[in-house]
Amino acid sequence: MPIETLPTVRFARGRLRIIDQTLLPARYEIREIGRVDDVCEAILSLRVRGAPAIGVAGAYGALVAIEEWSRDWVFDSAVDTGRGHAEVRMQFVGKHTPTVDELRDTLERAAARIAMTRPTAVNLSWALARMRRVWLRDDDVPELLRALVDEADAILTEDLSMCGRLASHGAALIANGDAVLTHCNTGGLATGGIGTALGVVFAAAAAGKSVRVYANETRPLLQGARLTAWECTRQGVPVTVLVDGAAASLLTSRRAACVIVGADRIAANGDTANKVGTHGLAVLARRFGVPFYVAAPSSSIDASVPDGARIPIEQRPGAEVTTFAGSAVAPTGVDVYNPAFDVTPAELIDAIVTEEGVHRPPFAFGAGA
Amino acid sequence: MPIETLPTVRFARGRLRIIDQTLLPARYEIREIGRVDDVCEAILSLRVRGAPAIGVAGAYGALVAIEEWSRDWVFDSAVDTGRGHAEVRMQFVGKHTPTVDELRDTLERAAARIAMTRPTAVNLSWALARMRRVWLRDDDVPELLRALVDEADAILTEDLSMCGRLASHGAALIANGDAVLTHCNTGGLATGGIGTALGVVFAAAAAGKSVRVYANETRPLLQGARLTAWECTRQGVPVTVLVDGAAASLLTSRRAACVIVGADRIAANGDTANKVGTHGLAVLARRFGVPFYVAAPSSSIDASVPDGARIPIEQRPGAEVTTFAGSAVAPTGVDVYNPAFDVTPAELIDAIVTEEGVHRPPFAFGAGA
Repeated sequence: MPIETLPTVRFARGRLRIIDQTLLPARYEIREIGRVDDVCEAILSLRVRGAPAIGVAGAYGALVAIEEWSRDWVFDSAVDTGRGHAEVRMQFVGKHTPTVDELRDTLERAAARIAMTRPTAVNLSWALARMRRVWLRDDDVPELLRALVDEADAILTEDLSMCGRLASHGAALIANGDAVLTHCNTGGLATGGIGTALGVVFAAAAAGKSVRVYANETRPLLQGARLTAWECTRQGVPVTVLVDGAAASLLTSRRAACVIVGADRIAANGDTANKVGTHGLAVLARRFGVPFYVAAPSSSIDASVPDGARIPIEQRPGAEVTTFAGSAVAPTGVDVYNPAFDVTPAELIDAIVTEEGVHRPPFAFGAGA
Repeated sequence: MPIETLPTVRFARGRLRIIDQTLLPARYEIREIGRVDDVCEAILSLRVRGAPAIGVAGAYGALVAIEEWSRDWVFDSAVDTGRGHAEVRMQFVGKHTPTVDELRDTLERAAARIAMTRPTAVNLSWALARMRRVWLRDDDVPELLRALVDEADAILTEDLSMCGRLASHGAALIANGDAVLTHCNTGGLATGGIGTALGVVFAAAAAGKSVRVYANETRPLLQGARLTAWECTRQGVPVTVLVDGAAASLLTSRRAACVIVGADRIAANGDTANKVGTHGLAVLARRFGVPFYVAAPSSSIDASVPDGARIPIEQRPGAEVTTFAGSAVAPTGVDVYNPAFDVTPAELIDAIVTEEGVHRPPFAFGAGA
């Protein structure tokens, strides 16, 4: 069965278009975003999430900033937006051509705000740094604008193709008949393409292997139950949901052949920040003799960070834990410990799969990785 | 500060009276139960829960069976029901005195149904076995009825006093300034008295030690966020809630001095069945060098079971995981793995605290334990 690519993050007619992931699985809805405030809100509230996907959203967010500031252009992406493959368009509809300094100032302010929304995933700052290199490269404003559209499109299309290569490398780790335990969501909803860790599973299934996904529900925001289960169902891959605390029970019962997760940032030594709960899962996998794999694009590797201790960990609002669908599930005002991520030490990771291949320990990612 | 004893399970005027725990923390409500069907429903749906508490509920459930079958008596408990300390009353208000065979038949049928509701916690079958010994002991019906009321009351009052002794033994394990990580609810709501694992913490606090509780929220039914946080707040003990997946993050940050949990059944070798998620927590505690303690009454020890492999594990409905407050949080019809408990091997347990004292490994519980 071919693997469906979801239009998780796209850009069309001057607007960022995202699948609003807070509404899934109940509703599948595309949200159009035309202001930087709303780009930030969408990332902060996890309407768009997943390290590679928020990188793409950040890049297109820079285009939103230009559109919002000057209504003189209508940009359009060259990437399929569901309306057929379009030409890159950049239509001048206004009167005032901004100076290059005005433009850069607008972009810097927007980039700073967007980058701040989520500190752990490196892809967001990585994508904005790529955009910045472009806006500093050229002084000709129309040329610069065209180049920014091209760069944002390149970040998306590279992510699309990265997913495919990563998945085919990773699929070799999965045998026919395997069940795979995963955490959070690392499918098409987390990337521009078919996904990272979950993309590996989809590629194995597309290659004709019989495979089952065990999806940790992933509290507090239930990306596993809501999104991974939804994607698996859509792709025709059998899926079983479990609470995060049932992973030890699952692994002792020998139901899962391996654990495979994504990454929000990988340090030079292989230490991996990922959705909270990942570290505990890696400890269990090691104890029960089950291989533990990380699948992520090289854009998630931050070689400037020597080890996991230097990765900033985002603390999220306590209300994510204490309320559910508007109801309180804890006493009012109770104290909450709610880190969004944890860091799995490299020694617990049996392989890191990127679009370049399967890396085995000891890991030593250089600046060019 | 004195420790408050909650009227978690009581019996008065012919009815079982329980705090309906499914409504907490939003509403504190006493539910009166006058039919065996409703006793079973209350245990199955976790209106009353916690191994010691369902033992007490099962014992009083036998009295409910008699009341429901023959409206000829109004039983009353001698235990404080909030109306002052009453005399045991057993008022004959009917005309037909049942034969001892009719009575035993009624009790056997009710006991079989009640015992089936939850197979893992041994306290339920233990309490019903105590009641059975009484109803087989005497052939004089009024005498037998009086003895059954006494026995059910004894199961409750022994549980009350057990909690106090257990807590004072366990409190010695907690130092001034310690933070304690726990899972599920093991306070007054889980027992007849002040609790087991959480009772230990309350006793340490009552002895003047500064102590903080980190409460795993405990999916799927959130006994930690809903009940443990509520009890701690009520008892004036500082509490912080976290998702179950954040335990590794908490333990690596050295925020907790020990982990202490309850038990639903302890095998002769110390293997311990407890709320799903406990086994993983024990693995993490060992990895991060944090002591892992189990606190439970000797009525939770099942010396007839040599090890944890023989403890039956209840599988609960998938809807507990896939729906929340009436909303679906996973695609319709998705497969769910939902064991209510897991088994922590004795080798990961640093001490088992009972009302008799602090047991250290190797554990070897005999029939008299």
